[in-house]
Amino acid sequence: MPAAQLPFSSSEYDRRLKKVRSAMAAADIDVLFVEDPSNMAWLTGYDGWSFYVHQGVLVFHDEDPIWWGRSQDANGAVRTCWMADDRVARYPDHYVQSVHCHPMETLAALVRDRGYGDKRLGLELENYYFSAKAYLVLQSELPDADLVDATALVNWQRAVKSDEEIVFMRRAARISERIVDGILERIEPGMKKNNMVAQIHADAVRGMDDDWGDYPAIVPLLPSGSDAAAPHLTWDGRTFETGTATFFEIAGCYRRYHAPFCRTVFLGTPPQFMKDAEAALVEGLNAGLDAARPGNTASDIARALGAPLARAGIDRAARAGYPIGLSYPPDWGERTISIRVEDDTVLEPGMTFHFMPGLWMNDWGLEITESILIKPEGPAECLCNRPRELFVKD
Amino acid sequence: MPAAQLPFSSSEYDRRLKKVRSAMAAADIDVLFVEDPSNMAWLTGYDGWSFYVHQGVLVFHDEDPIWWGRSQDANGAVRTCWMADDRVARYPDHYVQSVHCHPMETLAALVRDRGYGDKRLGLELENYYFSAKAYLVLQSELPDADLVDATALVNWQRAVKSDEEIVFMRRAARISERIVDGILERIEPGMKKNNMVAQIHADAVRGMDDDWGDYPAIVPLLPSGSDAAAPHLTWDGRTFETGTATFFEIAGCYRRYHAPFCRTVFLGTPPQFMKDAEAALVEGLNAGLDAARPGNTASDIARALGAPLARAGIDRAARAGYPIGLSYPPDWGERTISIRVEDDTVLEPGMTFHFMPGLWMNDWGLEITESILIKPEGPAECLCNRPRELFVKD
Repeated sequence: MPAAQLPFSSSEYDRRLKKVRSAMAAADIDVLFVEDPSNMAWLTGYDGWSFYVHQGVLVFHDEDPIWWGRSQDANGAVRTCWMADDRVARYPDHYVQSVHCHPMETLAALVRDRGYGDKRLGLELENYYFSAKAYLVLQSELPDADLVDATALVNWQRAVKSDEEIVFMRRAARISERIVDGILERIEPGMKKNNMVAQIHADAVRGMDDDWGDYPAIVPLLPSGSDAAAPHLTWDGRTFETGTATFFEIAGCYRRYHAPFCRTVFLGTPPQFMKDAEAALVEGLNAGLDAARPGNTASDIARALGAPLARAGIDRAARAGYPIGLSYPPDWGERTISIRVEDDTVLEPGMTFHFMPGLWMNDWGLEITESILIKPEGPAECLCNRPRELFVKD
Repeated sequence: MPAAQLPFSSSEYDRRLKKVRSAMAAADIDVLFVEDPSNMAWLTGYDGWSFYVHQGVLVFHDEDPIWWGRSQDANGAVRTCWMADDRVARYPDHYVQSVHCHPMETLAALVRDRGYGDKRLGLELENYYFSAKAYLVLQSELPDADLVDATALVNWQRAVKSDEEIVFMRRAARISERIVDGILERIEPGMKKNNMVAQIHADAVRGMDDDWGDYPAIVPLLPSGSDAAAPHLTWDGRTFETGTATFFEIAGCYRRYHAPFCRTVFLGTPPQFMKDAEAALVEGLNAGLDAARPGNTASDIARALGAPLARAGIDRAARAGYPIGLSYPPDWGERTISIRVEDDTVLEPGMTFHFMPGLWMNDWGLEITESILIKPEGPAECLCNRPRELFVKD
């Protein structure tokens, strides 16, 4: 089956595999099992909404990866992975969500059959979808193997984006701009939130010209007024009202690559405290963008952001961003670096972040954010190009 | 903070808590930790897209549950849970996705503080979001506790729906019908798939009249032609073509309750093999619906379905359905019963399933499915009301 729709060049996949193998060698890992769907896709091209059952990719030092998963999803694997069809391994359907047997029994058999039953097997212990039970079954089925924590081993290799990836993220950013433009154009008092979401979804998926939109890893978030204190409430059928702010947390997505972008819209005349907060936040964003350059650290961005906020009496006490790129639900972050004072990771050109200093106070909220690219020199580039301000619509 | 938007009556939440406590008692569990967002919402009302960080609900025998999660999400918990505000516990933001510390350290402290450090703690070991690492941290932090596998303990209590829940599922079914009607009305050769998805999303979220649509736990799936062999491929920017079948796997969702509903559309004149498959599948569906009655088992449905398929030479080798109701991504199933010959669970009135005998063959696919309700007597009721057939559009 030809993998007709591979999003990237074969040299790009080669590059990724080499990076991961180097990291495996550094951690003395003989074979790596990757269950994170983002890591699976980044390494092999695999793309499908099948991560609700156990599946993964085995990465070896000296042979091509093996995709392993549910029998019916093997058809998707041969259609989307770059490896040959005989690198697709499937387990029978009666293992799915069974109380009698567990899919990891078949993975363990595969590992043993390949001669790795007494070797060092890397596992993503802190990851969505790789359950505690999966770990316990592997432990029991591979008593002679050394199970090593390889959490985020692949994620870290994804931090610096290739030129091919940056192209995708720029396409995602065009979609993000389209979504935000549509919000600003359509919002008005009395409009129901779910009807706004209908438009946001439609803009996101239509995409821009031939760049069709993929599903973002998080649904649109758009709480208003005092509910905007809660960053992760989803929509309902209530209406937008004059005299309230609503933040819109959205992302365009192009072939699983995201450019998250948040703006807040106030209907009517914003109160002074919100204008003050906006001024401090924008000053902090600009200072953070200026600090977001190679050689500086993630914590430098956080500190630059924090100073004007502190002067305005705003204590966020939350991280201010995370790396972005290829993602699947439930998160569009890469779960490695965090933009916060505790994180001294040194910034490198090609890193991409959602610089996300949302203000979630006791009874109001304000989000103005940027997806950024660390440049070889100078301040970070914002992938989206829209005014960095509280939008006001009378 | 008043929980103004609670979807269910307080007696309904009481009923649920009592059922879970009985199941805990039967398993000799002193305190239960629930990380599954569907179980969290079913027990407490909690609703938010925050399941990408560790969070959960502690269920006790003799005091109200405690919601536990990230600091910034506590604002969402006090807004959506029925418990008093002092039943919301939060951990500081620097625990999020950190390599230095783990949120489960704070959960363990909470368990110890409440006097359960040496008791039997139930955990959902096979569940999305409760990671292997989470388990290992709890094990290390609670050396005197007895960690018990309570996988699906709550899920099983959800199997029989209350009248209040059935009302929600009927609303979801109206949305499902609207989506399928929209597909059939709009599909034509040359239409791009992503543009169709834009309409599907919009119909799903607009909902029906005042019943606003929530986000389904799975995105729309609509592979065509030979790609329909792969059940979980998502869309792209290619067009629908004359002479091919496309299946549409969708669900309307009302306040997190789902009514999945799949239909296949053939553009042009379907080949005889597909009409034969349709006939066998519809015969199997009708036989399965007739077998889906109290006292029979899940396997009875599977066998009734399987006979006409076998006569037509079709070997599915996959389960034919699963319970449905309240769900969050990545799955709208409840992960308890499976409609397959290995599952002898006895059917009870009020159980709801997605009767889902998708045909995913080597180079084609066909989906005709029903969301069903087990009635006190007689065959199952289909929640959606649309012709049970392969739709053909010339």
